[in-house]
Amino acid sequence: MADWKNLDRLSAFDALKAVNRTDLVKDMSGESGVNRVKKYNVKMAAGLTYNYAAKQVNDEILEKLVALAKEAQLSEKFKALYNGEVINTGEKRMVLHQLTRGQLGDNVTADGGDKREFYVAQQKKIADFANKVHNGEITNAAGEKFTTVVQIGIGGSDLGPRAMYLALENWAKKNGTFKMDAKFISNVDPDDAAAVLAGTDLAHAIFILVSKSGTTLETLTNEAFVKDALKKAGLDASKHMIAVTSETSPLASSSDYLAAFFMDDYIGGRYSSTSAVGGAILSLAFGPKVFADFLDGAAQEDKLSANEDVLSNPEMLDALIGVYERNVLGYPATAILPYSQALSRFPAHLQQLDMESNGKSVNRFGEDINYVTGPVIFGEPGTNGQHSFYQLLHQGTDIVPLQFVGFKASQIGTDVEIKGSTSQAKLCANVAAQIIAFACGKKDENPNKSFAGGRPSSIIIGEKLDPKALGALLAHFENKVMFQGFLWNINSFDQEGVQLGKKLATAVLAHETEGALKEFSEIFNI
Amino acid sequence: MADWKNLDRLSAFDALKAVNRTDLVKDMSGESGVNRVKKYNVKMAAGLTYNYAAKQVNDEILEKLVALAKEAQLSEKFKALYNGEVINTGEKRMVLHQLTRGQLGDNVTADGGDKREFYVAQQKKIADFANKVHNGEITNAAGEKFTTVVQIGIGGSDLGPRAMYLALENWAKKNGTFKMDAKFISNVDPDDAAAVLAGTDLAHAIFILVSKSGTTLETLTNEAFVKDALKKAGLDASKHMIAVTSETSPLASSSDYLAAFFMDDYIGGRYSSTSAVGGAILSLAFGPKVFADFLDGAAQEDKLSANEDVLSNPEMLDALIGVYERNVLGYPATAILPYSQALSRFPAHLQQLDMESNGKSVNRFGEDINYVTGPVIFGEPGTNGQHSFYQLLHQGTDIVPLQFVGFKASQIGTDVEIKGSTSQAKLCANVAAQIIAFACGKKDENPNKSFAGGRPSSIIIGEKLDPKALGALLAHFENKVMFQGFLWNINSFDQEGVQLGKKLATAVLAHETEGALKEFSEIFNI
Repeated sequence: MADWKNLDRLSAFDALKAVNRTDLVKDMSGESGVNRVKKYNVKMAAGLTYNYAAKQVNDEILEKLVALAKEAQLSEKFKALYNGEVINTGEKRMVLHQLTRGQLGDNVTADGGDKREFYVAQQKKIADFANKVHNGEITNAAGEKFTTVVQIGIGGSDLGPRAMYLALENWAKKNGTFKMDAKFISNVDPDDAAAVLAGTDLAHAIFILVSKSGTTLETLTNEAFVKDALKKAGLDASKHMIAVTSETSPLASSSDYLAAFFMDDYIGGRYSSTSAVGGAILSLAFGPKVFADFLDGAAQEDKLSANEDVLSNPEMLDALIGVYERNVLGYPATAILPYSQALSRFPAHLQQLDMESNGKSVNRFGEDINYVTGPVIFGEPGTNGQHSFYQLLHQGTDIVPLQFVGFKASQIGTDVEIKGSTSQAKLCANVAAQIIAFACGKKDENPNKSFAGGRPSSIIIGEKLDPKALGALLAHFENKVMFQGFLWNINSFDQEGVQLGKKLATAVLAHETEGALKEFSEIFNI
Repeated sequence: MADWKNLDRLSAFDALKAVNRTDLVKDMSGESGVNRVKKYNVKMAAGLTYNYAAKQVNDEILEKLVALAKEAQLSEKFKALYNGEVINTGEKRMVLHQLTRGQLGDNVTADGGDKREFYVAQQKKIADFANKVHNGEITNAAGEKFTTVVQIGIGGSDLGPRAMYLALENWAKKNGTFKMDAKFISNVDPDDAAAVLAGTDLAHAIFILVSKSGTTLETLTNEAFVKDALKKAGLDASKHMIAVTSETSPLASSSDYLAAFFMDDYIGGRYSSTSAVGGAILSLAFGPKVFADFLDGAAQEDKLSANEDVLSNPEMLDALIGVYERNVLGYPATAILPYSQALSRFPAHLQQLDMESNGKSVNRFGEDINYVTGPVIFGEPGTNGQHSFYQLLHQGTDIVPLQFVGFKASQIGTDVEIKGSTSQAKLCANVAAQIIAFACGKKDENPNKSFAGGRPSSIIIGEKLDPKALGALLAHFENKVMFQGFLWNINSFDQEGVQLGKKLATAVLAHETEGALKEFSEIFNI
């Protein structure tokens, strides 16, 4: 059995705090910099590499991080997780999202069956359904093919699937696997659903209602919104809707849906992109093979996360360096900076993944902790961000650790050569340049133009953003967040912090409030 | 002449630090909370209200903030700015973006003319051009109407105009003023331009090239990309492109463009939404009247910013409270949370506006400063964010001050009533509930479900997001950022921090690098 201890009760953490800080400007200059770029990198799945040359670590600090990983029993805890131990202690649930894409350990049985078989069966059911939609076996009432799929969901049922769809849309169009346009309705703001529906050919649209419990207020409201629109268009809603939910939800066996695909309580919303939640929309949009490849990339990365050799385990290393930056160096935020327009909403997904998982103030036993946990996560694609918030990253008063992502080749392949280089070369040149600019800085006589440097970054470099690379990238961050949760000894798999607001909103709508809340409700004429 | 002093040289700042902190849980509970909601609010333009009841201030702290505003001479400095003093000391330029929408003080003369007249003339020129496009006087070579406008620009030439377009798209469609679809190309990633162009009817598209200097690499590269595509489609690029630039730029008198509209060096990119940079695309998309109303809302808010009565000046108050949170309470980040799907990219615009303006480590004289300046800014629309990163905001170990925005009515007006309330009522109920949940928290026997509260927020409340309200909202944040720059004694109007990366990227492309940068370049095959 793993020994769950707070970070500040580990002697390796004291040892880590006692080590001298590195001088990143010096480290990344001259021959030392060259050696670090060559040495401080680790292979990931699907041709990706995690390079941490420009992080504020050296061999001595890495040695302490390895010791911390051992004392915190990161590998044992991951093993316990994938073997089906109840790691989500708050909700008393297993944590099985890795099982949606592969099997790392023991068979896990629950709800009367083998869970891996259950997830594979759902994937297969979705694949069959998607194939029938694509080949015209399943059509609208007029016998015409569906051309658009619209996901109705919020949070984990929206951000991950949306980010993954955008990440592969152009790749699929280029590679001949694009099947249907996908759209998303999430916000309870009626203008969200109204605008999406106004731009959708309802007669040829299939809607996916995604709610694990079948009770998410925003999602049920938007479902009603959509049904209303379908009815007004003279269409039978039940011929246009499918559900992704849990087998125990009221939606599971409703005749309101053409089909229902299942996830379960062991898949948290923000970890559900590789379950039916991502599977239905990605399989419909791009075909089941693309979704299978995406899962395969994630499964391969999961295997690397299970590697007990810390320096060969990209996720564990990234997690450890992040905790060093947060709890020893004291940096309060982390920026995610993909140099790929296709990853435009990937930072928004990671923002949920990380902040909802590790934004906690009590440990997994409900006891207060005496150290900071999850940082603020934000980001936008490069080079856009360079012309936006990078000013603060370069010359602001706080240091913000950076996580770059870059690919050698573009997805579409259409390019122009201007001033002797392609746009893709310019894109790559920019991310390489930023790493050095942040790390090394540059003194200038004009203090306004002076850069202190010493601003740490890592980069994940790939060949091209394809389904496997995307799966590996996603699993990298999921598993990094998991390991950080282990280090902080918190439960990364519940989200009790979202409940109070929901309760109070319900009270407002029921006119059962008093005090300042009543006052605000009256301002809004509720 | 205003006296420019560092924040920590102001005695009012010492006095502010010495005041006891408030207890937000207590303040916002019971009768006290009711009174604060009623009292701590100030009228803005276009029917908006800034309410700061849930901020960690009380009458005593507000008194010290007023004293700080006076000692820092915020009103005098704003006056100096709008009367044409060289406030952008780094680049030795005046700062005139407020003059694009109104005149608060003296006539400002430069470049051989009155600047207000110049900006109005550009607005009129754009309006004439837009009207001719709309009524078919200006068409493509085949004599057909243009149906789509595509902006090519990055940073301030992209984020602000894009956020404003999205903010008003549905409003314009509902109100019969929608003229043309707008799209945006920004990233040097070739997949950005390729994907936008693939979805555009080139024969009926008009492109706006936006670059003040006419030298922005990304923008010129994307222009070449677009021209290439037009040529391949058998179209004459010069009949499909207009330019927004400075009069001295190489683009100004080029025959490559149907028309050119001008901005100048006194308008920073991130402050350019009310200049020709926003004017061309918004006038083409929605008609000149909508753009004029947007300017009018901004001009009205500017007037309020010039009010010397601090407690009646929403921008000054917001700025002062923000500095109190940053420099006394020590909070490192601020979240922007609009409860309006139309404002989906407004936080990304404010991220640039704020972080690029105030992410500085030297004062306006180039001297090091001993206090923190601009915070990290991030945000997403509610209620989406509630299902994402709010977990950390409610229960994380760091306190993140929040800026909510909410409107009583939706833009489109289509709605459904579910469980006795409309979607719009649910949206409003949620934002009201969140304010109280963050401020007051809620104790629970289960520490996992316990909320400490004490997390400060403000809210801007409006009737409906229309052009005037949007203008006022934009000016609010622009002027807030300006006042904060004054308080920190930094130059909020240059961005030298973006230069080093550009230089190094150029060196990479010219193969003139060594050390770690060369090593990274080789990994990317450059």
